[in-house]
Amino acid sequence: MARVAFLVVAIIVFGMSNGHTQTPANGSLQVPARTLPVPTTVSPEMQAIIAAPISSTWNVFPKSIDEWKTMSAPTTGRGLPALRERFAVKSEAITVNGVQAYMVTPQTIPPENRNRLLVHVHGGCYVLNGGEAATSEAIYMAGFGHFKVLSVDYRRPPEHPYPAALDDAIAVWKGALKMAAPTNMAIFGTSAGGALTLSMVLRARQEKLPLPGAIAPGTPMSDLTGAGDSFATNFMIDNVLVGSDGRCDAMARLYANGHDLKDPMLSPVYGDMTGFPPAILTTGTRDLLLSNTVRVHRKLRQAGVVAELQVFEGQSHAHYMRDANAPETREAFEEIARFFDKHLGK
Amino acid sequence: MARVAFLVVAIIVFGMSNGHTQTPANGSLQVPARTLPVPTTVSPEMQAIIAAPISSTWNVFPKSIDEWKTMSAPTTGRGLPALRERFAVKSEAITVNGVQAYMVTPQTIPPENRNRLLVHVHGGCYVLNGGEAATSEAIYMAGFGHFKVLSVDYRRPPEHPYPAALDDAIAVWKGALKMAAPTNMAIFGTSAGGALTLSMVLRARQEKLPLPGAIAPGTPMSDLTGAGDSFATNFMIDNVLVGSDGRCDAMARLYANGHDLKDPMLSPVYGDMTGFPPAILTTGTRDLLLSNTVRVHRKLRQAGVVAELQVFEGQSHAHYMRDANAPETREAFEEIARFFDKHLGK
Repeated sequence: MARVAFLVVAIIVFGMSNGHTQTPANGSLQVPARTLPVPTTVSPEMQAIIAAPISSTWNVFPKSIDEWKTMSAPTTGRGLPALRERFAVKSEAITVNGVQAYMVTPQTIPPENRNRLLVHVHGGCYVLNGGEAATSEAIYMAGFGHFKVLSVDYRRPPEHPYPAALDDAIAVWKGALKMAAPTNMAIFGTSAGGALTLSMVLRARQEKLPLPGAIAPGTPMSDLTGAGDSFATNFMIDNVLVGSDGRCDAMARLYANGHDLKDPMLSPVYGDMTGFPPAILTTGTRDLLLSNTVRVHRKLRQAGVVAELQVFEGQSHAHYMRDANAPETREAFEEIARFFDKHLGK
Repeated sequence: MARVAFLVVAIIVFGMSNGHTQTPANGSLQVPARTLPVPTTVSPEMQAIIAAPISSTWNVFPKSIDEWKTMSAPTTGRGLPALRERFAVKSEAITVNGVQAYMVTPQTIPPENRNRLLVHVHGGCYVLNGGEAATSEAIYMAGFGHFKVLSVDYRRPPEHPYPAALDDAIAVWKGALKMAAPTNMAIFGTSAGGALTLSMVLRARQEKLPLPGAIAPGTPMSDLTGAGDSFATNFMIDNVLVGSDGRCDAMARLYANGHDLKDPMLSPVYGDMTGFPPAILTTGTRDLLLSNTVRVHRKLRQAGVVAELQVFEGQSHAHYMRDANAPETREAFEEIARFFDKHLGK
């Protein structure tokens, strides 16, 4: 019913003569408004996440450096003690090669993972989730995958713009190389952390450092230039990022600090991915970064890299790490863990 | 600009009090109208395909049996002689185990493919593409992959509803088992052919027939019940299928002929996929069947099956087999060919 009402409105606005949406000469497509039900094809836990209203702050962002500083301040994250308890993992603040980090360790580590180490770079549009909040995804991975995880608490803008985060991540990678064999290590992260995962490999190769045995970029912010079709198709459908030109993009520009957004160290989809380690990428059908995840997947495959893609039904940006009890969360992380197990040395 | 105009309209229609789209109590999401530009992130050839207006006949369908018969009549397809010439393949009408089929043979077959055979089941919502038109995708696969391809010209409704198509496909599979070792054979197809690929495996297992060494269901019509989130999210965005409740769904119901649409032989996403052969699935970010492709991928992975997913930027339903000269077409088919080469015996 609502769909019909909107179609009628669309016809009035565009002066169409019939019920079909028409395509203007430049090939752009006019899509009528519509009402999207919560899909029945996901778990009740995931339905609750999908049914959440769109972020009310997606296009509200600081206008002054002081407000940015407040936003980028370290936090303790949401419910981390309970999450650590649920997964029986501990988290210790450490300094690695001069950079703040956390070592997240499961109570029980199976023999095949004892000489393995994962390096984690957190998300949050390069600005958010400093401090202990950095470790949320690391706890999921340590818990579901039974790996030790070293989570980088990289410096953030406005005080520390690009390349501070990447410098810190690479410093931790150099430190990690003294803790485990590179072929026994993987790098992973989501959103900005997914982009940093990719740019770390580019940077490590540039510096002739050993590469990890595998990587898992989750819904990576792989293209800061605004390119990527799902910025348009999933606009106002992704209830997390909602749209480009919002808060997350403003944060990314704060990080970029005037550098060319097409630099592969900022937009790794433009990088040469030849020789990359095996990669597993994760996204969802409603993800604003669906395109920028699949574009990286294609680019890796074009370069002959072993690369797997998992796309979860109905999920918006990084929904796969929202609820530790959603079966889809377990599925996403266990799939990554299996991929690491397959490709890492022991 | 158009986006803003539509937001305002949406606010008026829904009586919203601010510029944010709101979520009603049932969790459904109201998405404003928008204009989608042609993505810059695909080849010029693919841009032309994406820029095409939405199908003008997507929700126009026959109202009488006679009209259906006309629609399901065999055709010679579009430009097949030129396509065969471009790929240097020949096509011969043959009868296999009593069923009409075509053997599509490349001029040059590399040694590793000489004992291999692919079985192809065409798409067309179970009604269209009978006769020589059946072979279009087979020609692409024979051309890009350098395999012999046996393409099933299965019977179609209204005269021959379910299970005629599946019966014919299985009869051809039994015939193929006399031509090559099952481990040297793969089954593939797109849309209805993707669903038939999956239901053939279910049926072969049921009949205790040998299974193929690999399968490639392309954007499969894996769920005829209407479930699948991208039916809503990609409504009016996919310029091929456009929406559910259109012509293709009417054809599928004609095929189902009153049978339970949730029967795995009609909606294979509901089937038990344990023991399935390695599978590679192909779809696009604008595909109306994006969800029903990724749901099959997840289901296969949950069953422990080797399953790879390729999702192409900006593509609607089966766009990957529209233009033999688009680099994305080559990429999609060569990826499938590599997957077959990896998993088939020689």
